[in-house]
Amino acid sequence: MTTKTEHKNWKNKLHEIIYEADTPLGKAFDVVLLILIVLSIIFVMLESVKGLPIKTYEFLYYAEWIITVFFTFEYIARIISIKQPSRYIFSFYGIIDLLSTLPLYLSFFITGTSALLAVRALRLLRIFRILKISRYIGESNRLAKAIRDSGAKISVFLFAVLVLCIIMGSVMYLVEGEESGFRSIPISVYWCIVTLTTVGYGDIAPTTPLGQFLAAIIMIMGYGIIAVPTGIVSAEYAQQSKKVHLNTQSCSNCHETEHQDGAKFCHRCGESLYNE
Amino acid sequence: MTTKTEHKNWKNKLHEIIYEADTPLGKAFDVVLLILIVLSIIFVMLESVKGLPIKTYEFLYYAEWIITVFFTFEYIARIISIKQPSRYIFSFYGIIDLLSTLPLYLSFFITGTSALLAVRALRLLRIFRILKISRYIGESNRLAKAIRDSGAKISVFLFAVLVLCIIMGSVMYLVEGEESGFRSIPISVYWCIVTLTTVGYGDIAPTTPLGQFLAAIIMIMGYGIIAVPTGIVSAEYAQQSKKVHLNTQSCSNCHETEHQDGAKFCHRCGESLYNE
Amino acid sequence: MTTKTEHKNWKNKLHEIIYEADTPLGKAFDVVLLILIVLSIIFVMLESVKGLPIKTYEFLYYAEWIITVFFTFEYIARIISIKQPSRYIFSFYGIIDLLSTLPLYLSFFITGTSALLAVRALRLLRIFRILKISRYIGESNRLAKAIRDSGAKISVFLFAVLVLCIIMGSVMYLVEGEESGFRSIPISVYWCIVTLTTVGYGDIAPTTPLGQFLAAIIMIMGYGIIAVPTGIVSAEYAQQSKKVHLNTQSCSNCHETEHQDGAKFCHRCGESLYNE
Amino acid sequence: MTTKTEHKNWKNKLHEIIYEADTPLGKAFDVVLLILIVLSIIFVMLESVKGLPIKTYEFLYYAEWIITVFFTFEYIARIISIKQPSRYIFSFYGIIDLLSTLPLYLSFFITGTSALLAVRALRLLRIFRILKISRYIGESNRLAKAIRDSGAKISVFLFAVLVLCIIMGSVMYLVEGEESGFRSIPISVYWCIVTLTTVGYGDIAPTTPLGQFLAAIIMIMGYGIIAVPTGIVSAEYAQQSKKVHLNTQSCSNCHETEHQDGAKFCHRCGESLYNE
Repeated sequence: MTTKTEHKNWKNKLHEIIYEADTPLGKAFDVVLLILIVLSIIFVMLESVKGLPIKTYEFLYYAEWIITVFFTFEYIARIISIKQPSRYIFSFYGIIDLLSTLPLYLSFFITGTSALLAVRALRLLRIFRILKISRYIGESNRLAKAIRDSGAKISVFLFAVLVLCIIMGSVMYLVEGEESGFRSIPISVYWCIVTLTTVGYGDIAPTTPLGQFLAAIIMIMGYGIIAVPTGIVSAEYAQQSKKVHLNTQSCSNCHETEHQDGAKFCHRCGESLYNE
Repeated sequence: MTTKTEHKNWKNKLHEIIYEADTPLGKAFDVVLLILIVLSIIFVMLESVKGLPIKTYEFLYYAEWIITVFFTFEYIARIISIKQPSRYIFSFYGIIDLLSTLPLYLSFFITGTSALLAVRALRLLRIFRILKISRYIGESNRLAKAIRDSGAKISVFLFAVLVLCIIMGSVMYLVEGEESGFRSIPISVYWCIVTLTTVGYGDIAPTTPLGQFLAAIIMIMGYGIIAVPTGIVSAEYAQQSKKVHLNTQSCSNCHETEHQDGAKFCHRCGESLYNE
Repeated sequence: MTTKTEHKNWKNKLHEIIYEADTPLGKAFDVVLLILIVLSIIFVMLESVKGLPIKTYEFLYYAEWIITVFFTFEYIARIISIKQPSRYIFSFYGIIDLLSTLPLYLSFFITGTSALLAVRALRLLRIFRILKISRYIGESNRLAKAIRDSGAKISVFLFAVLVLCIIMGSVMYLVEGEESGFRSIPISVYWCIVTLTTVGYGDIAPTTPLGQFLAAIIMIMGYGIIAVPTGIVSAEYAQQSKKVHLNTQSCSNCHETEHQDGAKFCHRCGESLYNE
Repeated sequence: MTTKTEHKNWKNKLHEIIYEADTPLGKAFDVVLLILIVLSIIFVMLESVKGLPIKTYEFLYYAEWIITVFFTFEYIARIISIKQPSRYIFSFYGIIDLLSTLPLYLSFFITGTSALLAVRALRLLRIFRILKISRYIGESNRLAKAIRDSGAKISVFLFAVLVLCIIMGSVMYLVEGEESGFRSIPISVYWCIVTLTTVGYGDIAPTTPLGQFLAAIIMIMGYGIIAVPTGIVSAEYAQQSKKVHLNTQSCSNCHETEHQDGAKFCHRCGESLYNE
């Protein structure tokens, strides 16, 4: 029984280190993990650069292996230390963790899986897990809420933009013709998106006067349109921060906590908020 | 008389299916229509792409015909099932519906109407009709209202931007000359719009020091100017959402009218808001 | 004496037609003026386009003369009909009016003044005078006020952007060298402004890894910085519109009109706002 | 003792001139300094331009020496006139001041330090010191506060943008291949930042249909994402300005604290706000 408790203790400790960030060891673990993730991302990116000295590629190869082995141990430790392993394995981060270790092992068995190695870029998503423990949690949650709240509005707006791009793209296809690079409607729509979002590569640009006139209209529209999502998020975020600033009164009768500023009686049950 | 009632019923049912989205059949009809519209748009766009296998063009040709025939039947059904056909025929969507079926038929009689086929892109506008039944209706209406409210302000602003572009374009025409691509004042104005809206294709770019200095000023102005429409829509939208979120409850005791959404008791005097 | 009165009447009538827009004749005069201004701008722009048929240039030449003669008469009429001609002559619009007629006459005496003709683009500024009578007056005044109010803030912000561009431009000059187009510090600063304002022509682009890394940082900074002027104008404009929407209560004692929403007593003299 | 007092007076006077801007001499010193700083920046920038007449370079050389000597004297004067020289020497501006004079002297001893001369661009940072005395101080402080308040939110947002760019950049590297310029993941990430921030140089642009499709999605995302920091700063700044405009008056009768600026009587009970 002692061993069982000990075993349990050992598991609990592992859980504390891996999943929590309150203890010094847990914090250290998170910091090491964060550094390794960032390093591994940099290594993945460097590996794709051509023309570096061969020694660098050798170093990247070994570093990649060391980090992958560490991540493998971490993955196993996460499965062991949790009570319901399946809940972790099939969670978003569980799949990311698996995907970020598997590709290198697979490269042994399957040849030509160099493409698979890029899947390791997904390892980057693990950074978000570390992010949770940061002091930004309050902020990002509120931000995420504001974005989610304005999501429906912004998506209907982006849809309208897309419809506009398809129509204007088709018109530009007819107006400009093939010489200027407007080879097909999809290309024209792509150009229209490039223009409306004010990116403006310049690989395709109108050359006829009418085409340039229409392009100018599209640009000015894009310039005016960009105001809309900004306005929405801005208003939504302001509202969000207002809600958060709601006073801290709590009704002694029904425990309602969201009261208007200056409220004297509970708006839900009519109980006075001051006779507590 | 039975047949007449039956006839009426049949008409009513058709009306219900086509114009409403409350019944399962009406919903299914809308979904089918939406899919066909999206497909037809994709087909129109693909048709303009060169270099695809001939079988694809054949498929697109037949698919186009099938969809057009369906839309023709839908158009006729809409005319039949409505009480005042003229109201539909001359409405915005009625004209769009006609324009989106007619071009293909016309291509039989008139040769060289390949340009007309692009008119089918207008079919895309029909997507907006389906949009009406979506849950976005409330949002888009509010959004549309905010845009309409700030429309006069934004148009006067865009007009000022245009005036600025014409003046700066003329100056750049004098400063840069023909070598850098500033061939005429309209081209210079076009360049100025491209620059001020921060699109920046790069097909025309100033090469003289003075031209680059002026261009830098135009860019910084554009950077500052973009704040204006955004600020307008933002403030307008915030105001809009404030108006919308104020419920119309009024306390029967103290006549306080500004109540939180979902309030059951007056926050000022504690009177119930529902015993009126 | 009768002739004097008559003369005065004739002058008053002319003043009414030219300077006011309340009478039908005054409105018609403004509309004609607006159309002529727009036409004259289009003609000036077209004149700079090369490759048009000679007949077009001939037409533009005569049209230009007719419009200029009209503007000359208008200029003289404005001087005659006003009581203090000097106040008009040396006003902003007086100078614009003179500048928009003079160049063509000067082209007779001075050869090689084709450049001066572009001064006629200033004629465009006259459009703003017409703008005054438009229904936008309220809007543009409020807008102008919001911009003026946030002017000091935006200018300090734009100055900070310029300082940033000079520093980053110098760094990029050292990092990139001459091969990529960063020929001198002014050119680098120009590139930095082009990048920070997200215009991005692409005529100059970093090619070294370090240069691209720094460029990426500049871009992300520019992306974050653009939020600042927008936020300022947005907040300022919202405040502006709040001031306008202040309730319509007026104190019966001291006639103070700007009261807080929900105020029961005048905040200036203490008089009750409801015992009127 | 007289000499000591005199000495002290002399030191105090110098301190007053250099560090303060209240006296006419102090103001004049600041203006001269500001002009010299701006001139020196322009000279540094001009020096890097090739192809100017030799006389200009000679002039720049001597002007540079004169300004540097002046700045050296200013630096010494600042050290002498302050009570604790170490506090100045190791302050931000102390280091900037040293860095802006040292390079020219070092160019005597070390050859090939032409790069060091660019360090003089740091002299520009000294402009900010002068800025302190400007009337913008109130504004920029408030602005800085709003930016600092929204800093955490914006940095978490920019981090999310960076993560997105790394992931999308890796995907584009796989999709586009080397022909279109997506030579490595870092280059692809760089391209993704260029696109998402709507800069769009066009030196690297997708050429495959799938690449262009993904690029279009990135652009529309960038277009929507730009709304977030703007919304944050906007809301934060609005809140900031609200806080600032609330005066601290409190009614002695009903303890209402939210009074309009300049209110003399309580808007709720009519009590004078000044008879406290």
